[in-house]
Amino acid sequence: MMLTKKRKGIIFVLSSPSGGGKTTLCRALKKERFNVVFSVSATTRKPRPGEKNGRDYIFLDKDEFKRRLLRRNFLEWTDNFGDLYGTPKRFVMETVAKNRDIILAIDVKGAMRVKRILRGAVLIFVLPPSLGLLKRRLKARKTETKEAERRRLSIAEGELGCYKKYDYAIVNDEVTKTVARLKSIIIAERHRVNR
Amino acid sequence: MMLTKKRKGIIFVLSSPSGGGKTTLCRALKKERFNVVFSVSATTRKPRPGEKNGRDYIFLDKDEFKRRLLRRNFLEWTDNFGDLYGTPKRFVMETVAKNRDIILAIDVKGAMRVKRILRGAVLIFVLPPSLGLLKRRLKARKTETKEAERRRLSIAEGELGCYKKYDYAIVNDEVTKTVARLKSIIIAERHRVNR
Repeated sequence: MMLTKKRKGIIFVLSSPSGGGKTTLCRALKKERFNVVFSVSATTRKPRPGEKNGRDYIFLDKDEFKRRLLRRNFLEWTDNFGDLYGTPKRFVMETVAKNRDIILAIDVKGAMRVKRILRGAVLIFVLPPSLGLLKRRLKARKTETKEAERRRLSIAEGELGCYKKYDYAIVNDEVTKTVARLKSIIIAERHRVNR
Repeated sequence: MMLTKKRKGIIFVLSSPSGGGKTTLCRALKKERFNVVFSVSATTRKPRPGEKNGRDYIFLDKDEFKRRLLRRNFLEWTDNFGDLYGTPKRFVMETVAKNRDIILAIDVKGAMRVKRILRGAVLIFVLPPSLGLLKRRLKARKTETKEAERRRLSIAEGELGCYKKYDYAIVNDEVTKTVARLKSIIIAERHRVNR
């Protein structure tokens, strides 16, 4: 009765330092066919092995990215060591207008920008179980130079301190457990009164 | 790491208009052995069939209830058509001090008092699927006079409007589903950053 009031979908922002595990987490959640939509970021970086255009990222060259940027096509965008990443605005807005919830898996800076623009967004921080594990994950990735790896780790350490600006923080110790926590947060937010 | 900061248990207040189904809900949650403690209210009303002293309520006579009231033994108390109900303060405080979460299944007035005293308490409103069903549930109870039933229903209707003062509202359509929603809210709150 009083809950049928017309409302819009919820925007969930999932972020973690690089290597924190947000991509793995989203992949696991997608597999469960949980009722939520995923935003696909645009990026100028090269696809990694196994990544598919349109599913994992929208791969664009720099000129095309900049054209879209100038057309204000992105909700937020980030320059990560020269690689540009952006969240296509239209898809997010159309999804919530249809009263469907959407997950944006983006970096910490992007999350802070979304929070400023969209007050109702729910920010979830994914923490690696330890800094040691974060290091190992970044190393295992092996897609970058030693120097880039070092810089990325130092940024990651700084970003860990940002968790206080989030609404929720979950430790990514075991994917199954972390996915369950994430689902609980989504379900709980759907029942919040003040939104 | 940063999440190991010493924190206290969370107080969850579950309330609904009379007949809204909070008792059934708590019973179902208890059966699942979900990791949460339940507060047992003291009351001066007579036990209903099947109710056990110390498990469902702490049954007290009016004099004893008043003695405890004067000793400030209750976190909150309510006079419901002459029947007194109170939440034993000490048990709640000792539970949260041990970093365990506790559920208080109390009425709307009691919930509002707890909210004023304990800012960090999380209020969950349990809504009956419809007012018609609420009526039927109150009638099915058959433990009171027509007049008491009418007054109770009129109060219940008024209380339904209180849901806006709660943090969460869940519709009690099917016990299994409602218990799942309740568990999600508890798990989500355990991962909130600002508490």
